[in-house]
Amino acid sequence: MSMDRLIEGIVKTQNPTVVGLDPKLSYIPEYLRQQAFAEHGETLEGAAAAFLAFNLGIIDAIYDVVPAVKPQAAYYEALGWPGVRALCETIAYARKKGMFVITDGKRNDIGSTMEAYAQAHLGTTVVAGSSYTPFGADCLTVNGYLGTDGITPLLPLCREGDKGIFVLVKTSNPSSGELQDKLIEGQPVYLHMGRNCERWGQEAMGKYGYSSVGAVVGATYPDQLMQLRKALPHTFFLVPGYGAQGGGARDVAGGFDERGLGAVINSSRGIICAWQKGGWKPEQYAQAAREEALRMQRDITSLLPKICL
Amino acid sequence: MSMDRLIEGIVKTQNPTVVGLDPKLSYIPEYLRQQAFAEHGETLEGAAAAFLAFNLGIIDAIYDVVPAVKPQAAYYEALGWPGVRALCETIAYARKKGMFVITDGKRNDIGSTMEAYAQAHLGTTVVAGSSYTPFGADCLTVNGYLGTDGITPLLPLCREGDKGIFVLVKTSNPSSGELQDKLIEGQPVYLHMGRNCERWGQEAMGKYGYSSVGAVVGATYPDQLMQLRKALPHTFFLVPGYGAQGGGARDVAGGFDERGLGAVINSSRGIICAWQKGGWKPEQYAQAAREEALRMQRDITSLLPKICL
Repeated sequence: MSMDRLIEGIVKTQNPTVVGLDPKLSYIPEYLRQQAFAEHGETLEGAAAAFLAFNLGIIDAIYDVVPAVKPQAAYYEALGWPGVRALCETIAYARKKGMFVITDGKRNDIGSTMEAYAQAHLGTTVVAGSSYTPFGADCLTVNGYLGTDGITPLLPLCREGDKGIFVLVKTSNPSSGELQDKLIEGQPVYLHMGRNCERWGQEAMGKYGYSSVGAVVGATYPDQLMQLRKALPHTFFLVPGYGAQGGGARDVAGGFDERGLGAVINSSRGIICAWQKGGWKPEQYAQAAREEALRMQRDITSLLPKICL
Repeated sequence: MSMDRLIEGIVKTQNPTVVGLDPKLSYIPEYLRQQAFAEHGETLEGAAAAFLAFNLGIIDAIYDVVPAVKPQAAYYEALGWPGVRALCETIAYARKKGMFVITDGKRNDIGSTMEAYAQAHLGTTVVAGSSYTPFGADCLTVNGYLGTDGITPLLPLCREGDKGIFVLVKTSNPSSGELQDKLIEGQPVYLHMGRNCERWGQEAMGKYGYSSVGAVVGATYPDQLMQLRKALPHTFFLVPGYGAQGGGARDVAGGFDERGLGAVINSSRGIICAWQKGGWKPEQYAQAAREEALRMQRDITSLLPKICL
C-alpha cells in the first residue's frame, strides 16, 4: 500500500515532512540559470532545464533525510510542455533516489475523465500493446467537489496499484472557509469531505492503520487539524502551510497520533529558497535546503514522541 | 473581453456549441494512428502525434461552423509531456483558425500557486526578459472549492487580458449532488458558487451583458440549469453533458436567455467519434464530425430564437 511506503519512509528518517518542489526562476541561483540558458536558450526549454537542474540538486541533498517530495504541477505548467517534461524527469529522479513522490495537481473531473488523470499521474497508458508511465508519481492530490464518482476511478490504483491520493479537505489559504467551513446538516463541509475520505479509503487500508486515501489539511487551521485527526482515524494528512504560509510546529502537532504518525508536513519555499537567507553562497543552495530541512525536522519532532510503527 | 469574443463567434456561426477535443487512441482511425506510429514510434510521442493529427483534421472540418473547441487536459496528460505538447499545438492551431479555445483543466489552488496556473494557461511567462505563451487558451475551467483567493489571481486576466474562466458550479456527473446540492443557510452549494461567479465577474463585464467569469452547469440537470439562468443574469454558462452523457436539446434550452445567448453547449465524444457510427469510412472522420456538429446545431437552435446581440 502506497501510504505504508510513505509511513515507512517517515519512520526510517524519523522525519514526518515533505519538501515542496515549487520552482520559480527567481528561486534558482544565477549560475544554474546561466548554465541552462547557455545550453537550451533563454526560452521555456532553457527555464525548464534550470528547474530540473535545481530540483536534482535539492533531491541529491535531502533524499537521505527527508522521505518525500511534492512537486506542484502549476509551476511546471507555467513553462508549458518543456516544464511538464521537467516535472516528469523530476518525479523519475526522486523515485530513483528512493523518495516518495506526491504530485500536487488537485485534479478533479467526472468519472470518465478522471480515469485519464489516474492513468496520467499514477498509472500507465497502453500504446499499441506496450505500457508507458506518463508521470509515475506515488500519490496525487485531488479535489472532491464533484463527489464520489470523480474519486472512484482512482480507488483501484489505491487498492491494488500501490498508489495513493490526498483529497482536499481543509485547505491552508485565507478564504478556504468560504465554502469549507460552512455548515451542512450541522457539520462543516470539511468534515463531510473528511468523512468521505474515511469511506473511500475503507478498501485501501494499509498495515499501519491508515488507508491510501489521505486528506489535505492546512497547518494554518490548527483547531480543525486537531478536530479532523480525532474524527478521521484512518486518514493520513498532508499538511501544507508550515513556514512561508505562517504555520509553526505547535500548529501542526495536533495532526499527529500518539505514535507520531498520521501526518506529513510540507514546506516549499522555506526549504528551496533557504539559500536566499542567512549568508549562503548561491552554490550552496542545496546544502542550505538540507540544513533547513533538518531544522524543520527538529522543530516538528521536538513536540512529538519517537516515531514508531 | 474574452466572453464577448465567444458570444460574437456564436452569433456569427449561429451556433451556441463547443466541440470537446477529448481524444483517446480508440477514437482515432487506424490509418492516422499508423501514420503517426510510423513517424514517431509506438510510443507516447507517437500517440501524441496521432492525437494532434486527429485534432487538426477535426478543427479544419468545423472551424467555419463551430465557434469554439474545448480540449480536456486529462486526455493529453495521459500521454505524459508529449501529450501536453500536443495540447499546446492543438490550442495554437485552433486559435490560428479563429476558434475560441477553452482549456478544460478544472485547475484550483491557493493564491500564489493559482498565479502560476493563470500564467500557464491564459497568460505569459517571462524568461530572461522575453515573454512566452505556455498554453495560450482563451478560457480555463477552474474549481472554486478553495474560495475567493484561489480565483483572484485569474481576475486581472479576465478584466484586462482578454481572457476568461468557467467556474464549476453544478457539474454533469451523477454524484455531483453529494456536495453541490447540499443546503448551506437554506440554499444549495451550487447556488452559492454561482453567486460567487456573479461577484467575481463584476469588474470583468463585457458589452453584451455577460462577464468573463462564467460557470459550468451540466445539461444533465435541466431544472438547476434553468434556476441558475434566472439567478445569475451576468454569468455565461458552459454546459457539458449533451449527447454521450445523456442530455438533449430540451435539457439545455433553459440555459439560454431570450436572445438565444447565455450558454454554450459542449459535445465531445458525440462529435469526435461520429465516424464510428452510421456508415462512415475512417478517412471521413472529420466530415462525420462536421455533419454531427451541424446536426447538433440544428437540434439545439430549433428550440431557440435567432441568436442576436
